[in-house]
Amino acid sequence: MLSLVEIFSQNLKTVRKNAGISQEELASICGLHRTYIGAVERGERNISIKNIEKISAALNVKASFLLEEQK
Amino acid sequence: MLSLVEIFSQNLKTVRKNAGISQEELASICGLHRTYIGAVERGERNISIKNIEKISAALNVKASFLLEEQK
Repeated sequence: MLSLVEIFSQNLKTVRKNAGISQEELASICGLHRTYIGAVERGERNISIKNIEKISAALNVKASFLLEEQK
Repeated sequence: MLSLVEIFSQNLKTVRKNAGISQEELASICGLHRTYIGAVERGERNISIKNIEKISAALNVKASFLLEEQK
């Protein structure tokens, strides 16, 4: 069973790639650091709800979608 | 428009009350502090994804549900 950190990091990577934007571009839109986005995508960070909100807004998806295990 | 912190805190309070458990009981199940749960329910804390996971598991709901604006 995947942890919520793993679900979020996988969804983030998939949605970002499908949107055709780089980690650098996403970081710039969010006002977060490129290395932070990379660490989040590798499941290395215990991301906060406010940063989840920034990232989901930047990707134009619902935060709840990024936390939902995709079939 | 509600912030994600507000959506989460409202959903948490609603789901906890519907489950018929107190903040103290929820805190005990989660291994978190009662005053922390109270602060989260008042939207005062920038909760982390790992604590979102603990709380949703304790309440037996999906984390994504707690982050979704309820109609």
